[in-house]
Amino acid sequence: MTSTLRNDRLLRALLRQPVDATPVWIMRQAGRYLPEYRATRERAGSFMNLCRTPELACEVTLQPLERFPLDAAILFSDILTVPDAMGLGLHFVEGEGPRFEHPVRTPAEIAALAAPDPELELGYVTDAVRLIRRELDGRVPLIGFSGSPWTLATYMVEGGSSKEFARVKGLLYDDPATLHRLLGVLSDAVAAYLNAQIAAGAQAVMIFDTWGGSLTPAGYREFSLVYMQRIVESLQRESEGRRVPVTLFTKGGGQWLEHMAASGCDALGLDWTTDIGDARRRVGDRVALQGNLDPAVLYASNERVAEETRKVLESFGDGPGHVFNLGHGIHPAIDPERVAALVEAVHAGI
Amino acid sequence: MTSTLRNDRLLRALLRQPVDATPVWIMRQAGRYLPEYRATRERAGSFMNLCRTPELACEVTLQPLERFPLDAAILFSDILTVPDAMGLGLHFVEGEGPRFEHPVRTPAEIAALAAPDPELELGYVTDAVRLIRRELDGRVPLIGFSGSPWTLATYMVEGGSSKEFARVKGLLYDDPATLHRLLGVLSDAVAAYLNAQIAAGAQAVMIFDTWGGSLTPAGYREFSLVYMQRIVESLQRESEGRRVPVTLFTKGGGQWLEHMAASGCDALGLDWTTDIGDARRRVGDRVALQGNLDPAVLYASNERVAEETRKVLESFGDGPGHVFNLGHGIHPAIDPERVAALVEAVHAGI
Repeated sequence: MTSTLRNDRLLRALLRQPVDATPVWIMRQAGRYLPEYRATRERAGSFMNLCRTPELACEVTLQPLERFPLDAAILFSDILTVPDAMGLGLHFVEGEGPRFEHPVRTPAEIAALAAPDPELELGYVTDAVRLIRRELDGRVPLIGFSGSPWTLATYMVEGGSSKEFARVKGLLYDDPATLHRLLGVLSDAVAAYLNAQIAAGAQAVMIFDTWGGSLTPAGYREFSLVYMQRIVESLQRESEGRRVPVTLFTKGGGQWLEHMAASGCDALGLDWTTDIGDARRRVGDRVALQGNLDPAVLYASNERVAEETRKVLESFGDGPGHVFNLGHGIHPAIDPERVAALVEAVHAGI
Repeated sequence: MTSTLRNDRLLRALLRQPVDATPVWIMRQAGRYLPEYRATRERAGSFMNLCRTPELACEVTLQPLERFPLDAAILFSDILTVPDAMGLGLHFVEGEGPRFEHPVRTPAEIAALAAPDPELELGYVTDAVRLIRRELDGRVPLIGFSGSPWTLATYMVEGGSSKEFARVKGLLYDDPATLHRLLGVLSDAVAAYLNAQIAAGAQAVMIFDTWGGSLTPAGYREFSLVYMQRIVESLQRESEGRRVPVTLFTKGGGQWLEHMAASGCDALGLDWTTDIGDARRRVGDRVALQGNLDPAVLYASNERVAEETRKVLESFGDGPGHVFNLGHGIHPAIDPERVAALVEAVHAGI
């Protein structure tokens, strides 16, 4: 686990330290756009089996690194493992996304929830982290992650994905105290979960706030950001003699970057609706920035991918603090060749 | 058609003139949350029949005004009538939304498109406008509308709704000239369509850019805003001796309000992810603002609806230029009583 890290560009860039080339990784880099991923997923039988079997999670985590000279690995897992460990019964319905067998809606159901012990109830995740670190053997750093409390709460209250957030927003507006109770226990659970990933070997962590952008500005601060901030404050920020950088990513959060940058995190993930140069002018001396190529650029030719990649690099400009990524997860229909073109363009620089 | 307008709050507020109370209307106010709408829709047989039969379109347009003291009527129609009139064959698949029988994807298919003559090929819309004006008899003004060229193009190229915009963004990045050709003909078509609505009696018009927020900032300006601006410049801005205000609404456009305000429009529609007071500080002396209650507030109690409504009014503050609305269309599951509470709270003021 303590083998020397041979490529530390990601960790340096997240801390705004100089690097020899902009580091790059891709959200969902271990995913359905890779035929080898689809083969392992097939062998696993189900998506949850894939997540719950450390050897298979490790296998798919490493797959994109075999193809592309990426600068980081990210733990293969799902954002909903924490509520699953809280007893909600996560399963996946083909073509419909995640579902919980036991959604929580009433004050009594929410009061009965407790933060799981990650080493006991999410041991398959920490086992996967340890195994991936061993297999990576210092090649690149490993990123751990979790969903944000607000994002987890939306799935837990709605029972699955949602477009209108009828139930969780009904709770937000009609019984905010109960929602705050849920978000409080989720903050404790996520902090413990990320600390367990760090103890097991995660060298950076990221909090995915997929649905923070569905809130009003005031609602975002009260129901999402404050809980991410509480988690940031509870994290073990030093491990194996290095700082463990924390990245916050709120999809649709481009209007709230100043607030996010004041949370104590090291870096902000940006979706593609914000110009990264403008974002840097707004917050760039306080945090690093990760992003933010439109994932749909990868439907175009290799030449256009390289050109659009250069535009993002140019917009960020010189100086430290940029981790290249897409503005959201890579789409399943993308040709892996496009990713090769992207990674090459990032490392070649502006 | 020229009966005196007895309630002109909407038109005055859109032009930033003083009003005795903040005007209010609701996006999709004639819609599925109303049992009387569902009954008419049932009688019509299909959604497209409802749009294509002026008597039925008029009937559902007026339904919400019978229940609530709203300050405007909005033409009942669909944003996709223009591409339908261009020969793409619009139909609706239950639970899946709009579909085009003949999507356009190749340069040849796009080159073959022509802007329809609205009085000939969209006569059912202008007939509906004339009928609604007659039935309204000066009670409140009638708003006409269209989808934005970019939003129409997404449906026309994808063949229906999309989450990833694979085809239209592939075109955007790989063959922008062809996409510009499509957006050009759509701009001509939308301008002619809105001018025909104005000639038939629409007293204000609104352009719905539902998918502008899926673009990068540079992409938004190049592929959506510039075409809306071209339409604004082509519109007949005076009718029946009054100015015809134009409102632009880009869902997810909160980061680009300054650019939108410079388009020559009179008002901007805001979704709920921007604080309306902040928006006013950014652009409020140039344009009026319409919005922006989170539509999910209507899942809460009447008391909370009134309270959240007051918060939006307070955030906007004193002075002219506010048209109250939701930040997006009303959800079908909402209890109509909530709308009554909202309208009452708006008219009661802060």
